[in-house]
Amino acid sequence: MNQPKRIDGRRIADEQVAQIAQRVAALTEQGKRPPGLAVVMVGDNPASDVYVRNKIRRCEQAGILSREHRLDERTTEEDLLGLLDSLNQDPQIDGILVQLPLPAHLEEGRILKRISPAKDVDGFHPVNVGLLGIGDARALVPCTPAGCVILAKEVLGDLTGKHVVVVGRSNIVGKPAAQLFLAEDCSVTLVHSKSANGAELARQADILVVAVGRPQMVDESWVKPGAVVIDVGINRIDTGEGTRLVGDVDYQRVAPVAGAITPVPGGVGPMTIAGLLNNTLTAYEAVE
Amino acid sequence: MNQPKRIDGRRIADEQVAQIAQRVAALTEQGKRPPGLAVVMVGDNPASDVYVRNKIRRCEQAGILSREHRLDERTTEEDLLGLLDSLNQDPQIDGILVQLPLPAHLEEGRILKRISPAKDVDGFHPVNVGLLGIGDARALVPCTPAGCVILAKEVLGDLTGKHVVVVGRSNIVGKPAAQLFLAEDCSVTLVHSKSANGAELARQADILVVAVGRPQMVDESWVKPGAVVIDVGINRIDTGEGTRLVGDVDYQRVAPVAGAITPVPGGVGPMTIAGLLNNTLTAYEAVE
Ligand SMILES: NC(=O)c1ccc[n+]([C@@H]2O[C@H](COP(=O)([O-])OP(=O)(O)OC[C@H]3O[C@@H](n4cnc5c(N)ncnc54)[C@H](OP(=O)(O)O)[C@@H]3O)[C@@H](O)[C@H]2O)c1
Ligand SMILES: NC(=O)c1ccc[n+]([C@@H]2O[C@H](COP(=O)([O-])OP(=O)(O)OC[C@H]3O[C@@H](n4cnc5c(N)ncnc54)[C@H](OP(=O)(O)O)[C@@H]3O)[C@@H](O)[C@H]2O)c1
Repeated sequence: MNQPKRIDGRRIADEQVAQIAQRVAALTEQGKRPPGLAVVMVGDNPASDVYVRNKIRRCEQAGILSREHRLDERTTEEDLLGLLDSLNQDPQIDGILVQLPLPAHLEEGRILKRISPAKDVDGFHPVNVGLLGIGDARALVPCTPAGCVILAKEVLGDLTGKHVVVVGRSNIVGKPAAQLFLAEDCSVTLVHSKSANGAELARQADILVVAVGRPQMVDESWVKPGAVVIDVGINRIDTGEGTRLVGDVDYQRVAPVAGAITPVPGGVGPMTIAGLLNNTLTAYEAVE
Repeated sequence: MNQPKRIDGRRIADEQVAQIAQRVAALTEQGKRPPGLAVVMVGDNPASDVYVRNKIRRCEQAGILSREHRLDERTTEEDLLGLLDSLNQDPQIDGILVQLPLPAHLEEGRILKRISPAKDVDGFHPVNVGLLGIGDARALVPCTPAGCVILAKEVLGDLTGKHVVVVGRSNIVGKPAAQLFLAEDCSVTLVHSKSANGAELARQADILVVAVGRPQMVDESWVKPGAVVIDVGINRIDTGEGTRLVGDVDYQRVAPVAGAITPVPGGVGPMTIAGLLNNTLTAYEAVE
């Protein structure tokens, strides 16, 4: 019998969260404090709102203490940095997440760098980027790319020697995904908007990871028959009768060619939150 | 007329050093202190000795103050870390370099991390690896890969859209080379000892960078006709009548196929020192 083509990110994320919940339960049974995550949100943004609520809900499922800090749209950088300093010191808090995007008057780079690397559960701090870069196991790694690796392993098992092509080279998805697949002993190719022959390179991939933020850009001409396709994109498009979420991959056209493919929604998205909980527990274990 | 195939790293490095010397001369004419580099060497190692002497000589040519710290083979980690702490504080010193390899009783990772990121002219500190990873211009970047990029640009000019294949994924050459070519808007593929089809991927490269530490491993079957081949390897082999330096590329077999190729010695090697002087000046400019 054939393996189903559709990679069920929801189910796999549920399993991950259940495992984390077990580990947390074991801790609290020993009388230890639970891991704690602080989520900082500045201003109102309906999409961020949904993301933050999902994160809080998943923390509850896993037994992780969560604390929400909602700041006014006009919060000064000084106040936000002050909050981060106090969270960096807070012994109940193991992970700190600043929900992006931030209002324009706040400088993202400076703010993310203020989070202690040890509590940087998004893995965006230069110290964690550097630790990942040199293959240091203490790195807290970005959640979405970590989810991509887990999904690929669910389908293929050991990834040694596979050729991975990552389309997109952002700091939060493409580049760390390349590092993580390299650490799995894959050959890795990074392509981007300046690549002369992106589709041609992509067509050689055993595993194709797409993170470009362009609705349904990747069609079957980018995909080798049998390849595993991981679609990171989350794009809201107007269908004429309302809006709909689609990925960066044209699922209808690629699914017949691919060996396995993640849907949007229900593929990579749920894995991101599982990665966040996992990083929170890792950060906790490093201090407890 | 054809461009010569042999890329003259010595000449290009001389030009780089001459440019740095001009910039340093302009500073000292203004009455400013010169940039300063401290080179720390532990124990005796004939190869390291040659490298260190070359570095000191090049500093002199460029007007950069250099200071050598030679420590006994049995120096304790505590003493070495103490020296690094004092150099980190020293206002005359902009760059600190610990010559590798270190004696086995000294833990390389811990020692390299003790160098202040602002003085880390080798670019090995996790903070600099991270800054390079996120594309922050303040990164001090590893010297050998930076030299590879300069050599490729000497031949090809703008590198946008070129496909670079890097063979080898060490922290000091392969991985940072991939990051630097990515920053030049190349598509980049990293292959290594676990790659299933290294030669096949390499054969697609417009620019092939080889850093494997295996004498003459790469022959013409790895090279697309017309490709630019950058050979990072430095291997001492026994010819029966003494020893000889060779690269990781079989020059005799690859040169007829390649569009351009670096010799060993006289290719990448001299560029590494030019990169070191350049980083020392960059570190100086960040504080003066
Ligand atoms: N599932 C999740 O939890 C999750 C998490 C994060 C992001 N996302 C989604 O993933 C997508 C990408 O996010 P991001 O933050 O990585 O985006 P981003 O920062 O906008 O980066 C997009 C990347 O795609 C490249 N690109 C653009 N057009 C291209 C083309 N025609 N061919 C090849 N490459 C092209 C860009 O190249 P240049 O560098 O040359 O401009 C850039 O590197 C978005 O849809 C986002 O919503 C999902
Ligand atoms: N010109 C200079 O100034 C300079 C500076 C530094 C180094 N070097 C020279 O450059 C060479 C590499 O140095 P390094 O420090 O990067 O070496 P390294 O740390 O030993 O790394 C070698 C890399 O090559 C890969 N490799 C080994 N065999 C391979 C094969 N058959 N096919 C594909 N990849 C293979 C290894 O893969 P795995 O990761 O899978 O093991 C590893 O990633 C050496 O000759 C060194 O002397 C020169």
